Amino acid sequence: MLGNCIDNVRKTVPLVHNITNYVTVNDVANVLLACGGSPIMSDEPKDVEDITSICGGLNINIGTLSERSIQGMFAAGKKANELNHVVLLDPVGAGASALRTQTAVELMETLKLTVVWGNISEIKTLALGSGTTKGVDADVADAVTEDSLDSAVAFVKDFAKKVGCIVAITGAIDLVSDGEKCYVIRNGRPEMGKITGTGCQLSGMMTAFVVANPEQKLLAAAAAVATMGLAGEIGWSRMREGDGNATYRNRIIDAIYNMDGVTLDQGAKYEVR
Amino acid sequence: MLGNCIDNVRKTVPLVHNITNYVTVNDVANVLLACGGSPIMSDEPKDVEDITSICGGLNINIGTLSERSIQGMFAAGKKANELNHVVLLDPVGAGASALRTQTAVELMETLKLTVVWGNISEIKTLALGSGTTKGVDADVADAVTEDSLDSAVAFVKDFAKKVGCIVAITGAIDLVSDGEKCYVIRNGRPEMGKITGTGCQLSGMMTAFVVANPEQKLLAAAAAVATMGLAGEIGWSRMREGDGNATYRNRIIDAIYNMDGVTLDQGAKYEVR
Amino acid sequence: MLGNCIDNVRKTVPLVHNITNYVTVNDVANVLLACGGSPIMSDEPKDVEDITSICGGLNINIGTLSERSIQGMFAAGKKANELNHVVLLDPVGAGASALRTQTAVELMETLKLTVVWGNISEIKTLALGSGTTKGVDADVADAVTEDSLDSAVAFVKDFAKKVGCIVAITGAIDLVSDGEKCYVIRNGRPEMGKITGTGCQLSGMMTAFVVANPEQKLLAAAAAVATMGLAGEIGWSRMREGDGNATYRNRIIDAIYNMDGVTLDQGAKYEVR
Repeated sequence: MLGNCIDNVRKTVPLVHNITNYVTVNDVANVLLACGGSPIMSDEPKDVEDITSICGGLNINIGTLSERSIQGMFAAGKKANELNHVVLLDPVGAGASALRTQTAVELMETLKLTVVWGNISEIKTLALGSGTTKGVDADVADAVTEDSLDSAVAFVKDFAKKVGCIVAITGAIDLVSDGEKCYVIRNGRPEMGKITGTGCQLSGMMTAFVVANPEQKLLAAAAAVATMGLAGEIGWSRMREGDGNATYRNRIIDAIYNMDGVTLDQGAKYEVR
Repeated sequence: MLGNCIDNVRKTVPLVHNITNYVTVNDVANVLLACGGSPIMSDEPKDVEDITSICGGLNINIGTLSERSIQGMFAAGKKANELNHVVLLDPVGAGASALRTQTAVELMETLKLTVVWGNISEIKTLALGSGTTKGVDADVADAVTEDSLDSAVAFVKDFAKKVGCIVAITGAIDLVSDGEKCYVIRNGRPEMGKITGTGCQLSGMMTAFVVANPEQKLLAAAAAVATMGLAGEIGWSRMREGDGNATYRNRIIDAIYNMDGVTLDQGAKYEVR
Repeated sequence: MLGNCIDNVRKTVPLVHNITNYVTVNDVANVLLACGGSPIMSDEPKDVEDITSICGGLNINIGTLSERSIQGMFAAGKKANELNHVVLLDPVGAGASALRTQTAVELMETLKLTVVWGNISEIKTLALGSGTTKGVDADVADAVTEDSLDSAVAFVKDFAKKVGCIVAITGAIDLVSDGEKCYVIRNGRPEMGKITGTGCQLSGMMTAFVVANPEQKLLAAAAAVATMGLAGEIGWSRMREGDGNATYRNRIIDAIYNMDGVTLDQGAKYEVR
């Protein structure tokens, strides 16, 4: 089933508007091309409405936000909402600075988001920032492990229900929920954390997957997570002695480039709770 | 003959000022180094005049334009014109947004350009935006193919004559004309479209080629196009099972790094019309 | 002894705040991860104080400075000074434009820097710009070679004493001095100059090394220089026919990823003067 989702990306070549950070933007573009989508980048407030209008989805990543790009995020997001486009938010660094937390919270309050995606700390920050001031810290450990899985699943379901969109949390175990069901995905390798931007790459790719599968958005978001994790496994299997994180970065993107629905269905390790 | 052009780049190491997008800027720098040139990047209006003054050419790419960088483009372009430097415009996304179209048209009207380089849609937008409001859409197909070649050659010659600079259009077949002659170049591979920024890389490299060959600017622009296409072919021949667009990106830059005049002369596939 | 320095980076995983250029920022992040550190990028004036507060060190690189990022550099630098954090300045292009020279000089005058790092031209510009208006040009050749080594060592010692921080100059021979001692390092390969940003990568890595070795800052800075040079040698040894600067870039980062203290101690070529 997950396999259909990537096949649909390759069939429909969704155009994705990315307002993303300048650290990992090149990899985001190449991963979008690798999975079958097509990337456009624009963050200038006077440019973003036109650009997002010709796209199918909008990927907002606040990794190197500026006052100017924040204006671009709101302008693009409102336009994308008017057009009923898919809108994904990756609140990079929410909790690390007041500006990032505040921007992420305001984007969530102002825009109708399709997906919010981040690590557990970022999502917890949003949950707290949105008003859930009790229990979150105590209930959910900082890393999603087999031990903390039950409470993490409950947290992500609750938060998804509360904010009315798909919520994805990645870590050693990845969770993707729409408030009713929660995909628990166990693909990936810890060495992926030694490459900058695998998360940013996933936000771009996930936007393309959701755009290409409008009837199965939750499944598509889960498929994107599994694709990235499986690509991490396949890429790692091609590493040679002396290779390091630079080569691994390329191997992962290469693996996405070569991924098809059959490979994804065979390699995806997940359960639905 | 094309081979001399790249040899001259390696002999003279032209310094190229790039005001380019943040998506592909790293690859532009590495391609400039690979072909024998030297890159500098600066888009701050208060910095660009000094920087362009110490360079031989200016490469303007509007891929992620902002209000600030647009000011930088005009300031740098005017200074480069005063100094009779080579100035190249890559109107990325002209036609996709009003800001991009307007900026590209105004840059063409304000600056004395040496080369305008883009895909057929971008160049058609400029032709229309500059006042040629009839016939262009109907006469020139959206992709330059063997079937549409005659009309595309006529279009690029006419447009080059009208705007008084070299015009280059890339696609399955690449065209480079100064209004009198038109180089028709058939190097390259379709898989190059799966890498972000091969076009941006070419704009940087073409600027270096034209700077290094001041007496043969048209030939130099054509040589840059053939170098990129041939590097795409050589790079592809080194791909292994499991490789994808990330590895292909590196293989192409590597092939440019190893390209010499003899290799280029042997591999270039072109005719002059 | 140098080997301990990289081992300490891997043990303590220092978080480094980078205000750096958009050309090479991705490589800076991957090199920081490769050597065992952790990168954060932020240049928005309203964001940088919070971000730098959670880090151990600040790396300021003026490679693509803008009016906005310059404000960010000063704001972050002052906050980092308040917190006694390591602050490194890489004055990219000082001497190439008035804005760059002035910004670098003002940063040196305003902030308490731990390390200033650049090529000989940039450091000479700072020395002149700071008031040393006689003799520097005549005394120090533009490249540090065996012939000019004595005067270069004297220059770097004098300048380090005068400005009260560690000064590092890289070139064919690298020099790192605190005003008393000067490490003379002979690792590296000339082909590293054909890759954009090995210098920027080193500024990020050096910041991490100094943060992780607070009692031995001079040694740590020298160890970072030797690590980069040795990685250049190891990376080169893995190059195959047809490889070029794109592959070399990856090989160098891979070599840093695999570098440990023993390898560094065995491969480092240096003397102390």
